[in-house]
Amino acid sequence: MMPRKSWVASANDPNTDFPLNNLPCGVFSINDGEPRCGVAIGDMILDVTALEENDILRPGDEPVFDVPFWNDFMELGPDTWARFRADLTAQLAEGADRRTDVKPHLVRQADAKMHMPFAVAEFTDFYAGRNHATNVGTMFRGPENALPPNWLHIPIGYNGRASSVVVSGTDFHRPWGQLKSPDHDMPAFLPSRRFDFELEMGAVIGQPSDGPVTVAEADEMIFGYVLLNDWSARDIQAWEYQPLGPFQAKATATTISPWIVTRAALEPFRTSTPEREKPLLPYLQEPGPMLYDIDLAVQLAPEGRPATTIARTNMAELYYSAAQQLAHHTTSGCPMNVGDLLGSGTISGPSRESRGSLLELSWGGKEPLALDSGETRTFLEDGDTITMTGAAQGDGYRIGFGTCRGTVLPARADPYAR
Amino acid sequence: MMPRKSWVASANDPNTDFPLNNLPCGVFSINDGEPRCGVAIGDMILDVTALEENDILRPGDEPVFDVPFWNDFMELGPDTWARFRADLTAQLAEGADRRTDVKPHLVRQADAKMHMPFAVAEFTDFYAGRNHATNVGTMFRGPENALPPNWLHIPIGYNGRASSVVVSGTDFHRPWGQLKSPDHDMPAFLPSRRFDFELEMGAVIGQPSDGPVTVAEADEMIFGYVLLNDWSARDIQAWEYQPLGPFQAKATATTISPWIVTRAALEPFRTSTPEREKPLLPYLQEPGPMLYDIDLAVQLAPEGRPATTIARTNMAELYYSAAQQLAHHTTSGCPMNVGDLLGSGTISGPSRESRGSLLELSWGGKEPLALDSGETRTFLEDGDTITMTGAAQGDGYRIGFGTCRGTVLPARADPYAR
Repeated sequence: MMPRKSWVASANDPNTDFPLNNLPCGVFSINDGEPRCGVAIGDMILDVTALEENDILRPGDEPVFDVPFWNDFMELGPDTWARFRADLTAQLAEGADRRTDVKPHLVRQADAKMHMPFAVAEFTDFYAGRNHATNVGTMFRGPENALPPNWLHIPIGYNGRASSVVVSGTDFHRPWGQLKSPDHDMPAFLPSRRFDFELEMGAVIGQPSDGPVTVAEADEMIFGYVLLNDWSARDIQAWEYQPLGPFQAKATATTISPWIVTRAALEPFRTSTPEREKPLLPYLQEPGPMLYDIDLAVQLAPEGRPATTIARTNMAELYYSAAQQLAHHTTSGCPMNVGDLLGSGTISGPSRESRGSLLELSWGGKEPLALDSGETRTFLEDGDTITMTGAAQGDGYRIGFGTCRGTVLPARADPYAR
Repeated sequence: MMPRKSWVASANDPNTDFPLNNLPCGVFSINDGEPRCGVAIGDMILDVTALEENDILRPGDEPVFDVPFWNDFMELGPDTWARFRADLTAQLAEGADRRTDVKPHLVRQADAKMHMPFAVAEFTDFYAGRNHATNVGTMFRGPENALPPNWLHIPIGYNGRASSVVVSGTDFHRPWGQLKSPDHDMPAFLPSRRFDFELEMGAVIGQPSDGPVTVAEADEMIFGYVLLNDWSARDIQAWEYQPLGPFQAKATATTISPWIVTRAALEPFRTSTPEREKPLLPYLQEPGPMLYDIDLAVQLAPEGRPATTIARTNMAELYYSAAQQLAHHTTSGCPMNVGDLLGSGTISGPSRESRGSLLELSWGGKEPLALDSGETRTFLEDGDTITMTGAAQGDGYRIGFGTCRGTVLPARADPYAR
């Protein structure tokens, strides 16, 4: 179904990420001003903080856009989400009755600096890509023991670090950490030499829970999705992760795209998880399709050189949906809160070109990857920029996520050499 | 050194947990009123929110006790912590000049309901008890491989779930979870049958960081300590924890004592970590004693029966201090925030009577523990109450933590049988 036309001309371009039926949620600032809530439309941003301040469009009785994050809006719940989306759509569609009131509150995306779209309450990262888990397991444990015995029964996850989640465009330094080479007896404190990206989707939790929820209830709690790059120091992880899992290897930065694409915008693109090799316990069974047909791509650009697309895959490669992960997350009674972020796990397809990490693309560093610039890569080098993009392709339009980008700056001087 | 005498008579009892030189920080309410910040003194609580409201004692220019947690106060930093402590001490000591202003703001602890003393930003749980790690490792991997290869080099830790941290006195239901018996092919969704406590200390982070910090700097960031019970579902953990660590097994509840005992109050009780079996990397080396000589005890009371003391140990049994753990936590550049909570890991001494979990006390369930009531325990049964206490013993006084208590209520009806 073609979207309705918008009076914002750029929203009608079939190549825009942000047509009228996307309306993703972000936080932006202009000229170093205060960050404000906004919705992307074509190449513009509609300043919804201004709409609320000026009583043009208000999601609720109390202000929710007087803070630079969407959490207060999310707290209002799914009925308000739907009503506000309908109101925004009406006012941005051709023939809108209040176009003259709304128009002054459009700003150009090109002039805006993007900020974190929501305050991350807690961050959980999952491991739901079967090809990824199989590839990693094969490298570390051999093909017979590639998948851990629990993998086909549980959406495996671990708690990540919310304080390290940053918005696209936030560069950071290569981390130092405690490492041990297989050929050394003792560990050393060094900059990571096997620093990597991980292509994931993030689900943004928009409603709380205080006890176990079903997969259907979990789906209703999800406000929307972002692209997510779970930067990973493989050498730090290899030494630290037994027996309690990844810790400092995943704590330098996790980058998300600046726009939360709402679940409502993605509805037409629902698709099922793959056929189950082993039956899932009833609490994990899905009442309907819970994944989305979202094409994903990763580009790597060495400093000052053109980018190479190094991976293309699709969200539908996941074995577990965010709704299943969230339901599992609540089984123990674990309270979930507005602003919780769930990473999907690395999304790899079955082919080499669809692998969502350099660990897989270079097969543990053994098969260097050729870039268009003539260089090769096993892991990330200083100055490398990783850019992730994603979009669901409709008939004559697409629901896009914008870009999720970060550059690995050189490690700082030894922080302990003082 | 004997503390100065207080005009609050109960604070001069050598058996009180809360003499004049303790002054721990909590949040309380009376008669279902709004929670307020308070400081324990003898068997009373001094309502510091009231002192601030009435301009009797103010930590800063802006109010910090108008919220029911100590985070805003912690943000003011160590100089303010020290000044406020000195002011409080002066006003509660015999001969205080404003005793008549202060006295109306004392309430009886017996009349108060305690709340979470701070808003937990993020929760990290460590594994720094060598006897505990050795016991658990011996049970699961045999005595030769008891300690993982990294254990003597890294303070092993994992991110926990802040939303599940509750204050002493918060009862909760035995969790359901996905389990697999060794004698079954398939997992099942059942109430945990191996539910356990873990005796830990929690360090409350009072200052932020934005890059790697030294152990000395980390120590300065710690506002104080609490008792911590990291409730653990051993059967859920056994099935879920490979390869990414504990998840739902630790997400039902983590109980802390209601009073944050400040680092300042504990200064006289500093003691060193044990001799190192392997030299630590420089970034983990301590400039001075960073543990505390705090006696700890655990009592188990079946429902309606008297309690049995089932473990006695000391915080000095830890191999790594909270300052070392925090320094390690920052190595990757991971930002730390005011209100972060670090669990020490289970504290077990070398003897059977000093083991800090039922897993160890009953040696994996094989050696049931006899209670004074004539019953035995392998793991916790419905209605069991675990009470932890801790105190540093001075000459004629002690710096106590109050109690950290929780009761395991029966599992709810199957949450998915609808």
